[in-house]
Order: sequence, then C-alpha cells, then structure tokens
Amino acid sequence: MTDERLGAMASELSRASSRAQPPPGGPKVVALGGGHGLYASLSALRVVTDALTAVVTVADDGGSSGRLRRELGVLPPGDLRMALAALCGDDEWGSTWSEVVQHRFRSEGDLHGHAVGNLLIVALWELLGDPVAGLDWVGRLLGAHGRVLPMASVPLDIVAQVELDGVISTVRGQVACAQTAGRVQSVTLVPEDPPARPEAVEAVLEADWVVFGPGSWFTSVLPHLKVPELARALHRTRAQRLVTLNLAPQPGETDDFSPQQHLEVLRQHAPGLSLDVVLADAGVVDDLDALDKAAAGFGARLVMADVAATDGSPRHDPRRLASVLDEIFLQKR
Amino acid sequence: MTDERLGAMASELSRASSRAQPPPGGPKVVALGGGHGLYASLSALRVVTDALTAVVTVADDGGSSGRLRRELGVLPPGDLRMALAALCGDDEWGSTWSEVVQHRFRSEGDLHGHAVGNLLIVALWELLGDPVAGLDWVGRLLGAHGRVLPMASVPLDIVAQVELDGVISTVRGQVACAQTAGRVQSVTLVPEDPPARPEAVEAVLEADWVVFGPGSWFTSVLPHLKVPELARALHRTRAQRLVTLNLAPQPGETDDFSPQQHLEVLRQHAPGLSLDVVLADAGVVDDLDALDKAAAGFGARLVMADVAATDGSPRHDPRRLASVLDEIFLQKR
Repeated sequence: MTDERLGAMASELSRASSRAQPPPGGPKVVALGGGHGLYASLSALRVVTDALTAVVTVADDGGSSGRLRRELGVLPPGDLRMALAALCGDDEWGSTWSEVVQHRFRSEGDLHGHAVGNLLIVALWELLGDPVAGLDWVGRLLGAHGRVLPMASVPLDIVAQVELDGVISTVRGQVACAQTAGRVQSVTLVPEDPPARPEAVEAVLEADWVVFGPGSWFTSVLPHLKVPELARALHRTRAQRLVTLNLAPQPGETDDFSPQQHLEVLRQHAPGLSLDVVLADAGVVDDLDALDKAAAGFGARLVMADVAATDGSPRHDPRRLASVLDEIFLQKR
Repeated sequence: MTDERLGAMASELSRASSRAQPPPGGPKVVALGGGHGLYASLSALRVVTDALTAVVTVADDGGSSGRLRRELGVLPPGDLRMALAALCGDDEWGSTWSEVVQHRFRSEGDLHGHAVGNLLIVALWELLGDPVAGLDWVGRLLGAHGRVLPMASVPLDIVAQVELDGVISTVRGQVACAQTAGRVQSVTLVPEDPPARPEAVEAVLEADWVVFGPGSWFTSVLPHLKVPELARALHRTRAQRLVTLNLAPQPGETDDFSPQQHLEVLRQHAPGLSLDVVLADAGVVDDLDALDKAAAGFGARLVMADVAATDGSPRHDPRRLASVLDEIFLQKR
C-alpha cells in the first residue's frame, strides 16, 4: 500500500474517529507488530481505548530506514514513524503533521525516498540521546492517541531459515527475508539476546490486553517473541492475549499459509504461550474446524467476524475491526 | 558562528526574554536580512515588540540550502529556518523544536550537513504548495514570536560586479560572492524582476519601523532593494527606516569597508531612499564626522550606542541591541 493511500486512510479515519472518541478509562492495550499491519491494528484500537501502546519491531533494513540505520547507526525509524502516524490527532494540527511525517521526498538526488518523519525522529534521537524520549516528542507533535515504543534498544537483524527445493539455507535481513524465493520456516534475531526497552516490558506487564498482528508474520509479528526479556513479559503478563490473523498470505514469507499454519509457526516460536482470543475474518477461513482446533491448542476461543475492507483489498477495515475488538474487550463476543 | 553557538545563544536569550516579554501593542516592525545578521536582529527585536515580521533573502546557493534548491527546485530554506529559530517560543516546547530544526546531520553519507529544519520546511512546501503557509506551520510549531516571510516567490541568484587589480568581472552565486578574492562593488539579481511575496510587501507597507541589517551587506541586506516590488514598498512605506550597521567588515565582501562606505553602497543600490535612524556601535567608528555626514545624506540621525557583545566577538549583544532599539522606537534616543 502506498503512503498516499495510507494518508487517505488516516484522514478518513480521523474524521470517523472524531465522531467516535474512545471513552475514558478504556482497557490498557498493547499492540505488537510493525509496518502496515500494525498501522491497521492501531487505526482500529485508537477508537476503542484511550490507553494504547504500540511496541514496534526495529529490524527493518530496507528503504529510508535501512539507509538511516547504516548511515547514522540508529534504530530503523520507519515502523515507529508509521505507528505514530496511525495515532495522530483528529484535528487539523494532528492530520497536517501526520502528513508531514509520512511525506517522502521524490527526486533524482540524495534525499529520494526518505520519509520526513524518519529524519525528524532520528534528529530527536541524536539531540536527546534517548529513543523513547524522541518518540514521545513526535507523539506530542502529532497529538498522538497513544504511545509508540521500540521493542529493543538496538537495531536488529532478522535471520530466517528458508527452505527451497528441499534445501535449508539461512537468509539475513528483513528485506532478504521478505523477498526470498524460498519458504521461511523460522526466524531468529541478531544479536540473539538484545536489550528489550524497559518501557515496552512494563507496558506489556501492566496491560489488560496484548494484541498480536495482523502483519508480516515472520518479520513483524514473531520478532517480539525472540527478544528474551519481552518474550518473558508476554508469557508472564496477566493481560489477555489476542491474535488478529492476516487476511491474505504475505507473498514470499507466507505463501500458501493457512490461518492455522500462522498459529502453528507462532507456537513454534513461542512454545508454552497461551492465548485468549484468535480473531479471523470469515472470508479467509477454508477449514473452520482446523482453525478452531489450532486456537483451542493455545487455550483460545476463536472469534469469526467480518473485519476485511469492503473494497476487496486484503486489508482490515479500521471501523469494522474496531467494532469487533470493542465487543471482545467488553467480553460481548 | 556555529549552529551550536547559535543554539546556546537562543537558549540563553530564551531564558532572558522569558523575563522580558514585549508589552502587547508594540510597534509593527519588519526586519530585513538573512543569515546570522538577521538572527541577531530578530533576537533583539523579539524582546522589543510583539508585532514582528522578518523578510528574508532567498538567494543562498551553498550548503544544505543550495543542495535542496538544486535537488528539489525549491526556495533555499536555510535563512528562513534560522530566522524562525531566532523567534522560537521561550518554553521547553519552543526551545526543543528550535534545537531540532537547527540540528544538522553529521555523517559520511548523503545526509551530511543537512539541517533538519530545512528538510521540514521543504516537506511542508511540497505538501502545501505555498511557501508562506509552510513557514507559518513551522512558526506555529516553534511558538514563534513573529512571522517569517521570503522576500521573493522564486529562488534568486546574486550576481556581483567584482573588482580585482583594476579589472571588473562578474561573479554569480552567493557563495562565489562571499568567497571572491576581489572587492564586490554592486549586486543585481537573476531573475532581474522576481515576483515579491505579497505578504512581505504588505508587511513593509503596514510597518511602523523597517530595520535593515546587520548582516552580509551585499548578499543579505542589499538584495531586498533589488526586488522591484519590494523596493517600491520600502520607498513608499510610511514606516520609519533604521539601518543597524555591522560591527566588523565581512571578509571578502566588505574588507576594509568603513561604516560610511556601507551607507554609500546602500545609496548606490537604492538611490532616493531616505532613512530615519542609523545605528552604529561606538567601538567601530573611526571617523564620526564622516559617518554623521553620511547618515545626514539619507536624512537620518546617527545613534551611537554600545551594542557589541562584551566577549570581544564581532556580534551584537541581543539584550544591549534590544534596549537601544526599544529606546529608539519610543523616540527616547
């Protein structure tokens, strides 16, 4: 999806959500992910609760983020920027600054492809010396409806075990994993035991609900479970755990993956993790029994709902998703 | 002067000015210039009046501004950014965002040397399609004590007539003019009749005071008088006109120029312009009679005052300059 498209979605949602502010005292929700999947999740959750925290992957090595990471030695800011934009204020101030941070330069020169918000976030990091303080300042700029945290304090590389024609090989880097011709089987992180952000660990431990997905399964959803301190918190928290399944397989990463296979790889990456709710769209489930059984394997109930966009695109409709999540949080589903 | 030094000055001044807010209903003041000279002028004027507009040169072709101008076809944003930073709000919000916009990336890569505020201003221009609207948004971000306007709607080139060993040649570009081994004699603009910004013309016509300088004489102070519409407004306005003379000759541009020679080239570039006040620091005037006579030639009274910094650097002390300007505006000097 293009940034322009996302911008239009954000504006549309801003208008929608300004008519549907979350009531004060909503549940404490932590949304885990990265990229467009997390953007969709946050676009829905911001309408449902006023106590929202995003915990975001920091393993991107492509595009503007990859270049900034290599040139300046910083965390890749792109997924963090996109999460902040999803939470922007409803008024002209919030929507204008959101458009600014999402804006990309187009040229024949050095700046081509850089997102302005990436540059702004990195500048704040350089000035303040603290990734979370820098993100909080951008959040204040946007009038963000929630907080955005990196899952780790250092830039990460994703390393995937990939199978192609019966041969297993190793692929390093988010871009390489997303573009591999082979089939990703599992992911690990380099470094193996990165320092989790304490604020992210604390948010998970204090949450009422923790929401995994939707998003690129191996590169945006599972990495959180490979940061040991964060994984421990995700196991230990008293929060209820919800997985929002994807609407379409991710080309390359999860070609031909059924919804239950998504749960299966989640189990492989987090043995012993229990879930409370698995949320799936009726339109993408071929084998309801198998999915129900896979959910039950986590101790979770399966909630089937129409959460896909009505335009036929494989994306969640923020208002439909919000409505279902609200019912789930209120235990009406 | 480094940006770090300017940042420190801004912080110091913020603290000082938070104890010395201008009274409401102050005179409408338009400050003309660019670069560090305009920064000094605005740092003083912001304490004196709450109705302040900066009208800024757009002819820079060096550094971050020059690269942006060439890569993206926009106005050079650097002088505009610096003027906005000089006007930043006194609180933590204003001073933090001022530091962000003044921050420069340092690397071995593509971003090296770019000022973050330049990138932010250009992004707003691209998004909003209107240079003044973009600058107003950055002004709102900074909580700016005044408005910053470009003097023209298109990027300009300065062309200087330069004398070296008795030979006259032409030098094009602000950087080339500033670095020429010869002696600048006069400047013109390319294009010759650029469209002035209507907001700048209006501000000049409605002002109570118009302040020229200090600053690089040929490349920051005189160019305004070569934009025909703006020059007409500067002649026609009922505002009183004040010139703040430099404390030191600009190496290259104005080597060995006496204060009265500065006035002489002003006359050459704006025949028929009358002035009301010429402000000079006692420490840099060798020939008081000659300067007094030069001022009288414009119809101006000469005000001598200690406005230099006490650390021996050739810069104006914002508080001293503010105090003198305040007295002049109140007609106490």
